[in-house]
Amino acid sequence: MDLKPTKPLSGFIELLPAQQRCFDYCAARMQNVLRLAGFSMLDLPAIERAEVLTDKDNWDEIETQMFLFQKGDTKMGLRYDGTVGLSRYVAGHLNDLVFPFRASQFSKRYRGERAQRGRYREFYQMDLDILGINTLSTNYDAEIISVIGRALESVAEFIGPNEVRVGSRPFWDAVFDWLELTAEQKKEIFVLIDKKDKMGDEDFAEGLSDALNDASKENIIKSVFTDGYKQFVNKSEKLDAAIDELTKFMTVLDGMGVKNAVIDLSIARGLAYYTGLVFEFKLLNHPELGTAAGGGRYADLAGKFSKTKIIGVGAAIGFSRIFAAMLENNQIDLSQFEQPIDVAVLVMGDNNVAYASGVVNALRDDNITAVSYLDTEKKFKNQIEYADKICARFSMIIGDDEVKNQVVAVKNMETGEQQSLSLLDAIKLVKKVA
Amino acid sequence: MDLKPTKPLSGFIELLPAQQRCFDYCAARMQNVLRLAGFSMLDLPAIERAEVLTDKDNWDEIETQMFLFQKGDTKMGLRYDGTVGLSRYVAGHLNDLVFPFRASQFSKRYRGERAQRGRYREFYQMDLDILGINTLSTNYDAEIISVIGRALESVAEFIGPNEVRVGSRPFWDAVFDWLELTAEQKKEIFVLIDKKDKMGDEDFAEGLSDALNDASKENIIKSVFTDGYKQFVNKSEKLDAAIDELTKFMTVLDGMGVKNAVIDLSIARGLAYYTGLVFEFKLLNHPELGTAAGGGRYADLAGKFSKTKIIGVGAAIGFSRIFAAMLENNQIDLSQFEQPIDVAVLVMGDNNVAYASGVVNALRDDNITAVSYLDTEKKFKNQIEYADKICARFSMIIGDDEVKNQVVAVKNMETGEQQSLSLLDAIKLVKKVA
Repeated sequence: MDLKPTKPLSGFIELLPAQQRCFDYCAARMQNVLRLAGFSMLDLPAIERAEVLTDKDNWDEIETQMFLFQKGDTKMGLRYDGTVGLSRYVAGHLNDLVFPFRASQFSKRYRGERAQRGRYREFYQMDLDILGINTLSTNYDAEIISVIGRALESVAEFIGPNEVRVGSRPFWDAVFDWLELTAEQKKEIFVLIDKKDKMGDEDFAEGLSDALNDASKENIIKSVFTDGYKQFVNKSEKLDAAIDELTKFMTVLDGMGVKNAVIDLSIARGLAYYTGLVFEFKLLNHPELGTAAGGGRYADLAGKFSKTKIIGVGAAIGFSRIFAAMLENNQIDLSQFEQPIDVAVLVMGDNNVAYASGVVNALRDDNITAVSYLDTEKKFKNQIEYADKICARFSMIIGDDEVKNQVVAVKNMETGEQQSLSLLDAIKLVKKVA
Repeated sequence: MDLKPTKPLSGFIELLPAQQRCFDYCAARMQNVLRLAGFSMLDLPAIERAEVLTDKDNWDEIETQMFLFQKGDTKMGLRYDGTVGLSRYVAGHLNDLVFPFRASQFSKRYRGERAQRGRYREFYQMDLDILGINTLSTNYDAEIISVIGRALESVAEFIGPNEVRVGSRPFWDAVFDWLELTAEQKKEIFVLIDKKDKMGDEDFAEGLSDALNDASKENIIKSVFTDGYKQFVNKSEKLDAAIDELTKFMTVLDGMGVKNAVIDLSIARGLAYYTGLVFEFKLLNHPELGTAAGGGRYADLAGKFSKTKIIGVGAAIGFSRIFAAMLENNQIDLSQFEQPIDVAVLVMGDNNVAYASGVVNALRDDNITAVSYLDTEKKFKNQIEYADKICARFSMIIGDDEVKNQVVAVKNMETGEQQSLSLLDAIKLVKKVA
């Protein structure tokens, strides 16, 4: 029989134990930041009805990008983000939740498209959303940015410093209105702005020209990226409002202690549902990762589920994008994650298993990670090799003599020093060195 | 436009925030037990190649039970257990892992069949496996049982006491050989034994009669459940070996401190890959849940992936089966999970956001869960209502006076007592009451 492949499917992440411990450690640290900020951790189904995942409008586009299947008459699929499920959940629990509701989801999402470098088909994102009924101050947009910043900061030893870039949808809406663009032109230009970073200045200029065929308007749009937004003050009420919102927002961010924020009007966030301020985090030491986290404000989160107007600001941290990529490229020093074992308990002979188990249980009861080697017929040499391989800090060797004398032979695996101690003293020794 | 449904698909679990905190708390406690026992936490892909999920033999049966889809030429599907992925992973990383390798997976699994009461289509299981190359003492089977027992014990305040029942595949093999059953009869009888609990004594007797048509043999098999296994001593070498293994195993379990184990030869564990001892945990206060955890030994885990013989003992704890069922039926008192918020920071006016944010950040830096209410134009009445609804233990109210005097107005939400304090003293107060 031919052997089957042992590699996971392309685009799927699989980590070795020490890598996984680093991944889990970073997730736990970041989640702790969110918990201290009052976010409720939600764990929603990974499978949703197809009609929840998408509206008919963009079905064709999304179908090629998703994992879909049919059971009986019901078409369903794996979620591609956390927002679809959250909007359904919140709309279904309006009376069970307190608003503004702070929700976080750290969960796997799925994209069915062919895997590319850095684009996974299964990946973790860590979402933060703050949802209000009918009204929600943009102060909450700043709060989300502040909390994401603190979450990234909590693992800075691994990923380095970050920066957040803030854009504004209303600003562009106001510019487009002021330039009297058609609906189609607005859409085209917006897509260009969203892709500007990837396409380069020349292609961007060409795209503008194709869409507008009006050198003056083209230059005005280009000038946003060279001369900034201040030139647009006093052009229209809508422009003034958008600029006012953006500048006040930067002041609020500063007041919240966010010192690494800059305005960047090329930040557009492609997804259709954003309607206000938008933002993206970048890791300064890892520009190759692109966007580490991003989000923005949406005026109506759950319109297709509820007549109640749910306003929100939400963001997703690209957890796998950041950590799986770094781990797979060995960019994190894993040495501190190699040694989770405090004590290897080595058992010489089946008769001594009961005594050894008493030792193991006492260690674990005292919060000491203890692994027993229970192939008791194996030679001491094999057993101590095992203790060495799992990087145990200590071995406790249990043979007939130890049982007879009710002691344990404790070996410090680093120094090689060995002594015969009572269990109580052995535990003290392990804890002292810990 | 019609509103779309807000309920999740049938068979999918969705918890409210306090329920989720209980669920997460129990998972974390149990995982801590596994970590102290040296298990490496693995997080493998939820999607596997179809050929990994199943062999051609039982394809038809499994296809109706799975979520499958095709991308390009590749047929793939969602895992239904943790073992398929683990066997692939271990076979692919023989040189990266230290054996005996202790692996744990706490992850979602999927079954595509129609949802029934207590049968979820998406559910968490917590797996434990210990894997050896070529050899692995049954002491490890006892270790797995011991660790599962400790894990369940760690959440006994919620689920009550448990019991483990131990069966033996080799015992039945030996009985069947001694009775000189045909291969087909062996299979039929084994299925009957596996279903005995559900079918009742009468149907069981009828099934035996249909399969064997030999009153004497039928009575011998029935007698196992009434008179036990000791009558089979000295009947055949194979029987003696199986009985010896089982009785010695119970002694080892006892020596490991497992005092709630009994022999139950009706425990068969349907899945084909078990070859040795098998076991099931039951919750004594919740018989309606059926098996809370179960597992056993397999002689060759990864034969389809590797020529190296990987022997293992593994078990799965039915985490969703236990906790989601209890939470959804309100069998757990959630009051202790309702109050995650230490301080609600209420902000009177946009001018005070920066000062309030300093307070919030200081609290969070000091490991105090703090939520700010940032719709600053809302009246005090609305804001204090919010603090009340989220069950905050304290409110810190920040208005113009507090900013001017560089203090915070701290209100104990239980007693109603309010005082003006420096931030440092306010933090001390919160920590004292914690």
